Amino acid sequence: MGKVFEYTYQVPFYQVDVHKRMRLSRLLSLALQVSGLQSESLGISDQLIFDQYGLIWVVTAYEMTIDRLPTYGEEIVIRTQATSYSKFTCYRDFELLTKAGESLLQIQATFVLVDFQTRRPHQVVEDLLAPYQAAFVKKRQLSYAFPDLVEPVRRPLTVVYADLDANGHVNNGSYLDWFYNDLPLPFLADHQPSKIHLTYLKEIQADCQLEHAFSCRADTSQHQLTSASGLHAQAVIEWRKDDL
Amino acid sequence: MGKVFEYTYQVPFYQVDVHKRMRLSRLLSLALQVSGLQSESLGISDQLIFDQYGLIWVVTAYEMTIDRLPTYGEEIVIRTQATSYSKFTCYRDFELLTKAGESLLQIQATFVLVDFQTRRPHQVVEDLLAPYQAAFVKKRQLSYAFPDLVEPVRRPLTVVYADLDANGHVNNGSYLDWFYNDLPLPFLADHQPSKIHLTYLKEIQADCQLEHAFSCRADTSQHQLTSASGLHAQAVIEWRKDDL
Repeated sequence: MGKVFEYTYQVPFYQVDVHKRMRLSRLLSLALQVSGLQSESLGISDQLIFDQYGLIWVVTAYEMTIDRLPTYGEEIVIRTQATSYSKFTCYRDFELLTKAGESLLQIQATFVLVDFQTRRPHQVVEDLLAPYQAAFVKKRQLSYAFPDLVEPVRRPLTVVYADLDANGHVNNGSYLDWFYNDLPLPFLADHQPSKIHLTYLKEIQADCQLEHAFSCRADTSQHQLTSASGLHAQAVIEWRKDDL
Repeated sequence: MGKVFEYTYQVPFYQVDVHKRMRLSRLLSLALQVSGLQSESLGISDQLIFDQYGLIWVVTAYEMTIDRLPTYGEEIVIRTQATSYSKFTCYRDFELLTKAGESLLQIQATFVLVDFQTRRPHQVVEDLLAPYQAAFVKKRQLSYAFPDLVEPVRRPLTVVYADLDANGHVNNGSYLDWFYNDLPLPFLADHQPSKIHLTYLKEIQADCQLEHAFSCRADTSQHQLTSASGLHAQAVIEWRKDDL
């Protein structure tokens, strides 16, 4: 396993939802920030790999297992480590814990290095990986097999300025907000996510006309984002009825 | 003048726009967080005034003067103080500075205490104000006189789950994102705000059908949010052509 990095954080008001629970989109953004801080602490900051190699880190998949989402004002610890990597793919674990050490949720993230100019995946650069002390593995991990969407609802989606980040494309966090926004408010009012599989296949640019196809049956919702150029992302969210 | 409180902050990736500048909506959220931290440090936290008085702080207006927006990774200082208050209205200044002490922008905010149950403004409670050492003033400050909107563009707006905060209404930050989202991308690509007047008149609930009426001429944009129940917010933004 890799070198462990920890970061303590207090959940601010502006990152919580109507139930005072941290919003998933913000939680993933925070996790990314913490992995960036680890990189910085190891002398291989995002800025350095961009300046010296023209590369950026891009997340291609998340798997989240959620026991409880942190709430407004709660002090939490984000613990992360790069666990392993293969020729093109890097794996990183995150764990969110209470200050007392109780585990709240786990995230397994898959990253690739992308050439900023060509927007194509770039082979792992050994020098950039070594400081994380992750293990090299020959085989890529198997991707999650998403079930087919059956009789989905389809809604058009327009990318807006607020969705774009400094990489010039839609920020990873926006996807989860989009999935949530099309689910019925009464459903969101008494459910919270327990398990999430989310895959990013193709980046989304500012001028992209998207369609969100989704279904929500029993305690599982399925989501697909497509445009004229194909499938951009898909997700499965398992929900747990709330005990509010 | 009141007791001064300072907070140091490093701008994370997920709060910046395509130009790596901190998004206004996030900047206002951060400012609010810092005023909340001052309240906490003085023993009059938002939670305490809610628990003991059933009151919440609500911003009714912002005036911002922007020399430069902070950028990704920049370390900034947020300095704030409650300056004065009248029978129903409280005034607070924020200043954002570089670590070296250079002033980046100033915000004058107007707050009222609102009864959480009735959603009506509540008279200032002296005991809750004393620790800020703000001056009592008999007269309310004059509100900014918004010019009439001439031949505005009108766009429907739907409130989504991501807009709602723990007070059960649309978060203050969403308004600015909405205003930005309807401006043309090429305009936003080479302009940044230099002066903003923003007034919140009536809170927006989850089921509200809104209209955003706006104009963008020369270097000024004007914005109004209305619903069947009237005017919710209005803003004037003066823009400066970018030297990117």
